[in-house]
Formats: sequence, structure tokens, C-alpha cells
Amino acid sequence: MMITDVVHSYKNYVKKIMDFNEAIALAEWDMRTGAPRKGIAQRSEVVGTLSDEVFKRSTSDEMKGYIDALTNPSVQEQLSSVTKRMVEESQKTYDRFIHIPSEEYKAYVILQSEAQSVWKEAKEKSDFSLLQPYLEKMVSFKRKFIEYRGINHNQYDALLDLYEPGLTAETIDHVFGKLRSRLIPLVKEVIASKNQPDSSFLTTSFPIENQRALCLHLLKEIGYDFDAGRLDETEHPFEITLNPGDVRVTTNYQEHDFISTVLGTVHEGGHALYEQHISRDLVGTPLCEGTSMGIHESQSLFFENFIGRSKAFWSHHYSELKRYGSGQFDGVSLDDFYRAINTAHPSFIRTHADELTYPLHIMVRYDIEKALFNGDLQVRDLPGIWNEKMKEYLGIVPASDREGVLQDIHWPGGDFGYFPSYALGYVYAAQFKHAMMKDIPDFDNQVSSGNLHIVTDWLSRHIHQFGRLKKPLEILREATGEGPNPDYLIQYLSAKYKDIYQL
Amino acid sequence: MMITDVVHSYKNYVKKIMDFNEAIALAEWDMRTGAPRKGIAQRSEVVGTLSDEVFKRSTSDEMKGYIDALTNPSVQEQLSSVTKRMVEESQKTYDRFIHIPSEEYKAYVILQSEAQSVWKEAKEKSDFSLLQPYLEKMVSFKRKFIEYRGINHNQYDALLDLYEPGLTAETIDHVFGKLRSRLIPLVKEVIASKNQPDSSFLTTSFPIENQRALCLHLLKEIGYDFDAGRLDETEHPFEITLNPGDVRVTTNYQEHDFISTVLGTVHEGGHALYEQHISRDLVGTPLCEGTSMGIHESQSLFFENFIGRSKAFWSHHYSELKRYGSGQFDGVSLDDFYRAINTAHPSFIRTHADELTYPLHIMVRYDIEKALFNGDLQVRDLPGIWNEKMKEYLGIVPASDREGVLQDIHWPGGDFGYFPSYALGYVYAAQFKHAMMKDIPDFDNQVSSGNLHIVTDWLSRHIHQFGRLKKPLEILREATGEGPNPDYLIQYLSAKYKDIYQL
Repeated sequence: MMITDVVHSYKNYVKKIMDFNEAIALAEWDMRTGAPRKGIAQRSEVVGTLSDEVFKRSTSDEMKGYIDALTNPSVQEQLSSVTKRMVEESQKTYDRFIHIPSEEYKAYVILQSEAQSVWKEAKEKSDFSLLQPYLEKMVSFKRKFIEYRGINHNQYDALLDLYEPGLTAETIDHVFGKLRSRLIPLVKEVIASKNQPDSSFLTTSFPIENQRALCLHLLKEIGYDFDAGRLDETEHPFEITLNPGDVRVTTNYQEHDFISTVLGTVHEGGHALYEQHISRDLVGTPLCEGTSMGIHESQSLFFENFIGRSKAFWSHHYSELKRYGSGQFDGVSLDDFYRAINTAHPSFIRTHADELTYPLHIMVRYDIEKALFNGDLQVRDLPGIWNEKMKEYLGIVPASDREGVLQDIHWPGGDFGYFPSYALGYVYAAQFKHAMMKDIPDFDNQVSSGNLHIVTDWLSRHIHQFGRLKKPLEILREATGEGPNPDYLIQYLSAKYKDIYQL
Repeated sequence: MMITDVVHSYKNYVKKIMDFNEAIALAEWDMRTGAPRKGIAQRSEVVGTLSDEVFKRSTSDEMKGYIDALTNPSVQEQLSSVTKRMVEESQKTYDRFIHIPSEEYKAYVILQSEAQSVWKEAKEKSDFSLLQPYLEKMVSFKRKFIEYRGINHNQYDALLDLYEPGLTAETIDHVFGKLRSRLIPLVKEVIASKNQPDSSFLTTSFPIENQRALCLHLLKEIGYDFDAGRLDETEHPFEITLNPGDVRVTTNYQEHDFISTVLGTVHEGGHALYEQHISRDLVGTPLCEGTSMGIHESQSLFFENFIGRSKAFWSHHYSELKRYGSGQFDGVSLDDFYRAINTAHPSFIRTHADELTYPLHIMVRYDIEKALFNGDLQVRDLPGIWNEKMKEYLGIVPASDREGVLQDIHWPGGDFGYFPSYALGYVYAAQFKHAMMKDIPDFDNQVSSGNLHIVTDWLSRHIHQFGRLKKPLEILREATGEGPNPDYLIQYLSAKYKDIYQL
């Protein structure tokens, strides 16, 4: 067969896998946004059947044949950059799963589902002992899967690689260490400040219908394309991609906490912009998605924090906000509003944390995960070390495990190695902002004039369009000229909070 | 292999096909209810990939192996009735498609899509000549597919069998002939009556939000289970089944024609009740759907006409209706309202026709389809014969093909043989009603007391639960003691319209 024929067959083969993935994504969106209760069990079986098909095809002899043919060095030089990266991704998936006996993988998937269900109960009862045996099994599955790939040391790096390819614990230690050494004292200064903002007007009633209209409006303002997406309501906001022409977001309207709704919507909007702007040339390939969890989070946090919590953004939108509200902002100056939405203080729950303390929540989890896989920490010791780390980083200790080690679904879901990407994304976002300022020196003016498209265009040009064609560190280096560097985030937070709290 | 093992493997194999079908149904529901425009092209490819998979598996060697093993007479006697019917359905699908070269089938699917798109344009321009070449190709495809199965005479029966298994043109000729001979004079009497109802209050404004609430309420009243379904809004109302725990309906709110909205919703609700009540034992088999288009339509028309247009139903709901409305029913008696919603007169558009003239619209189409496939009618002669038949049956001739032969999407979509099931369903519905009256002699009292569950239970027991386990004529005979008999519909329409028009 001619090599062009092999490439053609390979691409058709992969396209079908991607089509199955789109069907799975739709089923998941539907189950989370309004599928009737009584159809869910059978729908889960549909997802199971489709996932099984994806698994089988991704690890089939046919796939192996394509990979072998297309990784041959003499062939590689004839391939386009897109095809080369596709094959690399196909191989990565193949290698990841091929050594796992399919019975064992099924047992793992069942454990995932059971552990998440037990987690709910354990959290409700604030009883870690219920979850402990499931987490132990989960950790041992994860270890075994890594060992199947011949990795026996620094196993945590193999987990990191699933979410943030190229990043190692060594790099993260450096980045987080520097960030932590500045954040811990800054948080203390903020707590001690006598200039605490008044944010009482943020919790008065804000009619849900108006929140809905406001969210639709702000999504349009940041450039979200409603011809390629839709906004629905769910308990937990999320973004989900069917294809770049169909990138959906959800939000959760809260009558007495509209600012969480608005910032949550803008956050998901940031994820969505990334996916909407991926080059259409990548549709039907494994490259047609965000390149890593960290880069993805950099886009959502860019919009949530660097736009949504900025004075420039609200100087453009504050009078609108007043119209959507019900009088609670009468007599509240833009400055007061800005300070109120940037109130910071240590708290127990990560998802409710402010932008200043958020990275410290991540570091608690990072230290624990790393010690579980690279060190000798045992699952039974998790509640204790959690509380120690909270005390050390945030100065507070949760009264119960519900507000502590049991708060997140990630570990019961088997997602070890995922947490760091939240804080890495934040670091990246600050780096992107810094680099962007060289091209758009009047950034604040542009934002306060409502010219967000200039910002979005920059992100699209340097990040979005490439999808997974470029790897995360490649994106970062090409856009900012350096690897992960926490200095810009430190500068941003120091300057902003010194100003707000008059330190 | 033991026969139980074969059955087990066969059922697993079929279950996966059904799971793919559910994913296709979800994609279709989504595309029709709110999928963003820019994602549609890629979504269509997903549907193509999944359909291809269903086609391949339904006609695979593995499927053939199961069919051969399980149709062996010595094996058949060991099979449960469900398994036997499953195999029969699998074989029917296999035989239908196996002889069609896959390239030819693909060309047909493309033609379907093109012809429907050209149809839209032809309808807008009222220019049949645009559509004619596509319809000619469509007819020739349909003929060829039938000939592949060795059928060279009475080809129309093979088409009827796709929608209404067991029914032949001979039977339908008899049923429609009898019905027509009574309906044509009855319509003339109605037109000539001096007692025409006043229905002006039906077209005053009825707030959309109130229509929405009313439709939700009435769906609950007829027994639609919202834990196993949902109501959305689309241009054309439809019902779609994902699984019996997820049976969705849509409607189209029309500010100045609320009664069409209400009756349309109740119509789709009738379809949905059928699917929601299918025995859960049939999930994952090809038997888990309505047994035929005709029986399906009998359920929707039962609720639309025998319930939704009845005085008993509105005697229970009329005061509610007044609350949802905006004063237009003040001074309108229940009797006046009942007469208004049962106004009848010849009209051009089938989907807007009243319950009296509706069957005549179907007969126009039936005669033409039959002559196309069993006789020597040519596609180019369609507009002419359409107008002749309209004149003959309804006494009116459309001024343009847009209001005539071009009004329906069925033929461009390749659905020849589908139309008769609409009128057959109506005939069945009247038969079911007649049979039901023996068990529920105080039917009107029950309906006017709001005890619709008694009616729904009867339908569920005699029809719904069986899904496709029983064939349409089996259902009909067991429930009513006879084959298709138009007498009950004739009696119903004669009595009702004599009363309303005081003939």
C-alpha cells in the first residue's frame, strides 16, 4: 500500500473513534442537563457500549498496524505535522491501555463508579473510614496500571503526564515552592489588614431571570459564539465539547450569590472560547481539543480572574449590572464593587476559595498526592496530613472531613495528578497576561472600552487555534518565551491585594 | 456451543445495536431541539458513523450465524416467545438490507438528503419540476431495493409492509373504499349545513407561557410520566424514544392558535404513552418500540380525537382552560367551545386538516403511491393526478403545487407506503374505542370525571406493554376481535358531525 493510502485509512479509522467520542459527550451532556431520571440506567449502558468501542478500536491490531507503519523513521519524514502528532497521540493512548488486561480495566471502571457513590455517602456522614478501602483499591489500581508500563519510580510523574504532559514533580515543586513562599505571608497581611472590603450587597437577592440574561450577555461580550454553543443550567457549572462548532456551557443560578454565578459562567466561557477557536482542520483527530488540563485552566482562569475580577472589565459593565440588579448597587461605587468581589480570606472549600488563597488549596492536595505515589504516605493517613497541611498553608483546620479531605470527587474518581493543573493553569494565565501586555500595552483601556475581542484574538492566535497540535510547554514557551514561571502570578496578586487591602 | 450460550451471545450482540440506535436517537433529538447550527455538519457525520455501524452489524456474518442457528426448527421450540420474535425481526432486517450493495445504499442515503433539501426549495418556489428528477431517482431506488428481494409484482405491498406489516393494498382498498363512500357525502352535508360553529375565539391571543403550563398539565393528566420524558419546543411537534424510561415529546406554541398546540401536544403524548408503557423486559431488543406506524398512530389519534376533541374531556378541563386563557372564553359555553374545536371543512394542507376530512387527504396520497408502484403512473404526472384526486375526494383544487403535491416531506425522504398508516391508525383507534366501551361502558363519565388512567390502563394492557412482541394485526384482533374495520370510525364521525352540524 502507498503511504498516502495508509494515512488515508488511518485517518478514517481515527475519525470514527472521534465520532464515537462525540456521541459519548452528547450522552453525558444530556444526562447532566435534563435527561429524565428513569432513562439514566439504560443510557449509562449506551455510554458503556460506546466507550468499549472506543477502547477496542484504540488498542486494536488495526491501530497497532497504523502506528507501526507511520512511526517508521523513513515514513515519518513524509508525514505532515498534523499526521505526525496524531500518530503520537494514538500511540500514547495505545501504550497507555494495551498492557492493561481488559477485565482489570472493567473492574477499575466499576470501582470508579462505586467509589464515587460511596464518596457521596462518606461526605454526607463526614466519615472517611467508609471511603478508605475504596481509595486504597483505587491507589493500587493506579499503581498497577503505571507498573504495566514499566514505570516503578517517580510514579507520580506518570500521573501528572496524563493531565499536563511534560510537567514533572520536580518542576512543580519549584513553581509551587516559590509561589507558596510569597502567598502565605501575603494572605497573613490581608487577614491582618484593617481595610476589609464591605461585600454585604453581593448577597442580597438578584432575580434569577436577570442573572440568566446577564450571563447570556457577558458570554457574548467575551466572544462566546452562540451559533456554536448553548448555555444551560446545572448544579455544577461545566463546559463540554461535542465538536468545535458545538461547545456547550452550563451555569448554576444562585439568587443570593450572583457574583459566583457570573464568575463561574465567565470561567466556563473561557474554557469554551478555547474549544470554539480550535482550527477546523483538526476536526476528527485526537488533536481537536485543549492541549492539557493546565492550558485549559489557564484560559478559564484568565477570563474569570484577569477579566472577570478586574476593574477594567467592570468599569465597562457596571452600569449594565446595575440595570440587571434590583437596586442593591445604588450608592455602591465601582471601586467598592471591585473591592467587594475581590475579598480574600482563608476558607475550607476549594471551589469557593477566592483567587488569592486558591493556589494554596491546590498545594495541599499536590503534596498529598505526591507523597501517596512517590513517597510512603498511606491512604489511612490522609485526614491527618490534610489537616496539617491546611494549618501550615492556610492557618485553619476544618472541623470535619466533609469540609476537609472528603470535599472533592477527584480521588474517588481516580483522578490523581489532576489537581496541580488548576494552579499551573493560574501560573500560565499570569504568564500569558504578561506576554500579552507587550502586544497590547493598553490592555486595561481596551478592556474598559469593551474591546475584549483584541484579547480573545491574542489568545486564539497564540493558544486556541493549535488544539493539541502543540504540547503545553511548547505553547507556553512560544507564547511567553519561557517555561512555567510563578513570578508573574506573584506580581499580579501582590500588587492587586496590596492595593485592595491598602497594605 | 449450547443453545443457551448462542441465545446469550445473540442478545448481547443485539443489545449493542440497540445502544447504537439510542445514541442515534439522542443525536437526532438534540439536532431538532437546540443543537447549535455550526456543529450540525459534524454531528451528521456522527450519525452517519453510528448508522453505518448499525447497518454493518445487522447484516454481518455474525448476525447471519445467529439467525441460522436460531431459526433451525429443532432449536425454535426451545426458544422463548421473546427470543423467537427477536430473531424474526433480526431476520427481517437482515433480508431487507443484505442484498443491497453498500455503495448503492450510501447513494440512496445521499439522495434522501439531497431530495429533501431540493424539496424545500421546490416547495418555496412551488415548482414541481425542480423535485421531479430526484423523485424519479427515488422511485427507481425503491423499486430496485424491492426487486433485490425477488419481488417483481405488487411492489407497493412490500413498501406497506415496512410500516404496517401484514397489511396489503387489497385490504386497504377495502377499508378506504368503505370509509370514503361515507365520508365524501358526509363532508358535503357538513359544508351545506346552516349551523356552522363560531370559532373566532380560538384565534385570539393565548399567552405562550400559559400554553406551556397548560400543555405540561394536560400531558400529566393523560398519564405522561415526566420522570421518563420531557417536553421541548420545536417547529414541528414530534415524539422520540431513547428508551422506555426516556420518551420525549415536543410541541410548537402558537400564540393565535392554541388549540392546535394543545391537540398537537396531546397527539404526541399519545405516541409517548405507548412507548413509556412498553414492558421493560423488552429493553435492548428490537421489540422495544411500537409495533407499527398504524398502531402507533392509533394511540396518538385516540388521544387527539377521541379524548382531546371530546366533550367529556373538556367538561372536566374547561374551567381550567379559562384560567390559563386571557378572557377569550368568557361567555363561551362548553358546548360552543366543543363545537368550535370540531369545525370541519375541506382544506388543502393535510397537517392542518380537521378529523373529519383528514382520512380523505390520506386517500389522495395512497391512490397515487399505489399507482406509482403497482400501476404505471409516472412521477411527472403527480401534480395532475394530485389535483384530480383532491377535486374528487374533497371538492377543491389547490391553486399551487406548494399547497398540493409538494406539501409533504415523505416522498422526497423516500417514505412511500407510510401515508396509509395515518388513516389506518385512525380506523384502529375507533375500533379500540369501540372495544374499550365494552369494558368501560361509562367511558364518558370516567373521562369527564378526570379518570383518564382507566382509559390509559386499558390501552396499556391491550396494546402498549407488548411493544413489537405482537404484530399489528395480532394486537388488533386480540383487542377488538376483528381485523381492520372502518365501520366504527364511520359511526363515530357520522354521529358526531350530525350532532355538531345538526344534520
